[in-house]
Amino acid sequence: MKIISSAEEMRAFSKECRRENKTVALVPTMGALHAGHLSLIDIARKSADIVVVSVFVNPTQFGPNEDFANYPRKPEEDFEACRSRGVDAVFAPPASEIYRPDASTYISEEQISQNLCGKSRPKHFRGVTTVVGILFNIVRPDKAVFGLKDAQQVAVIRRMVRDLFFDVEIVEAPIIREDSGLALSSRNAYLDPGEREGARRIYESLLKGKALADDGCTNVDRIKALVINSVSSAKIRVIYVEVVDRLTSLPVQVAERGKSRISIAVWYGRVRLIDNIEI
Amino acid sequence: MKIISSAEEMRAFSKECRRENKTVALVPTMGALHAGHLSLIDIARKSADIVVVSVFVNPTQFGPNEDFANYPRKPEEDFEACRSRGVDAVFAPPASEIYRPDASTYISEEQISQNLCGKSRPKHFRGVTTVVGILFNIVRPDKAVFGLKDAQQVAVIRRMVRDLFFDVEIVEAPIIREDSGLALSSRNAYLDPGEREGARRIYESLLKGKALADDGCTNVDRIKALVINSVSSAKIRVIYVEVVDRLTSLPVQVAERGKSRISIAVWYGRVRLIDNIEI
Repeated sequence: MKIISSAEEMRAFSKECRRENKTVALVPTMGALHAGHLSLIDIARKSADIVVVSVFVNPTQFGPNEDFANYPRKPEEDFEACRSRGVDAVFAPPASEIYRPDASTYISEEQISQNLCGKSRPKHFRGVTTVVGILFNIVRPDKAVFGLKDAQQVAVIRRMVRDLFFDVEIVEAPIIREDSGLALSSRNAYLDPGEREGARRIYESLLKGKALADDGCTNVDRIKALVINSVSSAKIRVIYVEVVDRLTSLPVQVAERGKSRISIAVWYGRVRLIDNIEI
Repeated sequence: MKIISSAEEMRAFSKECRRENKTVALVPTMGALHAGHLSLIDIARKSADIVVVSVFVNPTQFGPNEDFANYPRKPEEDFEACRSRGVDAVFAPPASEIYRPDASTYISEEQISQNLCGKSRPKHFRGVTTVVGILFNIVRPDKAVFGLKDAQQVAVIRRMVRDLFFDVEIVEAPIIREDSGLALSSRNAYLDPGEREGARRIYESLLKGKALADDGCTNVDRIKALVINSVSSAKIRVIYVEVVDRLTSLPVQVAERGKSRISIAVWYGRVRLIDNIEI
């Protein structure tokens, strides 16, 4: 497995793959790999000849008061996990390789990204679309695999790919959960064992919302209210609960089974957690 | 020569070229081709195996009160000119092929694009960078040729290519002028013969500014004042005159020979004209 830190070398590796008519799948990550990431890698492994995993804690998608400095970083463990999973190359550039001091160009999606996490994290998605565009231009993958835990992110990236004609197939991968139901996230590392247990309320509240929809309720406000009431506690404060279109993550007026998703973001103490469920 | 209107077909053509190990040069135009464009095509012809000319009057780079509706369009003449110049493919999509009704993704450059034309045409460069990014993603050229009449545009695109890691070499081509010195532009078609003659003042004023710099003047304000006074007339109203860095088009404090450029935009009656000269 190659570990590549320079954009030029990454580009050369990828060109060589294309020259040999090998397809390339990219799994963009911020490292601190967990079983969710590994499931993305497995999907990539099945869908292309060559698997590239990028490990890059992207500074531009963090707000000024967010957890960029503390975000978990364990490159050696990440490389080992990639190696054991049959990854061909890890692209782990330093930030200075990706962003010049006078960088001034951004890719922004201005509809889907305005809702949900976009409201409370104003420049987050601009950071995401910009870095994903950069990674696509460096790696030029045939496919890129993203996890549905970040369903809005997937929708934003799909829109970007469509609007800007990136020649990349977006593959979405299901959420991987702990036994408690808590969606896997690198940020779960901020929770102590007791909190991790308490965080099961998040998925449980989504299941209750889904059950209500399964019972025939199409009233978005009722579903939202049930989820909000189920999840709220002394430690859990709701940032948003929304019923959205399954594909675009845009809010819907009517909850439709097979077409909608319930998305949630909460503060669990000082930890921001998101989750979602299709109904 | 192929005339291609669908993005999918354009992409397939370009992929076939790459498969045959042929390099592709793109000349992005808004049509109404004149000798300036033809010089770009000739440069492209010499620098790659395959020349693609895009002919697309890009709606998103026009402001609401600008000349999008009236912009000169003569596709048949353009195709004939391309054919006679040895172009391999013209990409002339309808606007609906490039922009979905709910398109919501933009590429924006937020430093270089703020000056000069960016001040009086607020969303112009966002339209330019977005469409050029789209064209790059569809055509995936090895090189792209741009004319220096639009020096700020070249600087913005260079910055975009650098920041977003587009794998395209930007080739810049010198300004082509009428005998009078008027820089060739599709918008010159708006001028009657008398106006066309009067518009020689624009280049003449730049030559005076350059002569002052050649004489050793490094004072930006003096150079600007001379150009403004030389060009102004009953019919010509200055939009801006600036001394800028030759490469970035960012304003400079000191005019330096070999490093600076004088850039100008004027209203000639109702026609907006731009020009520039290196000093």
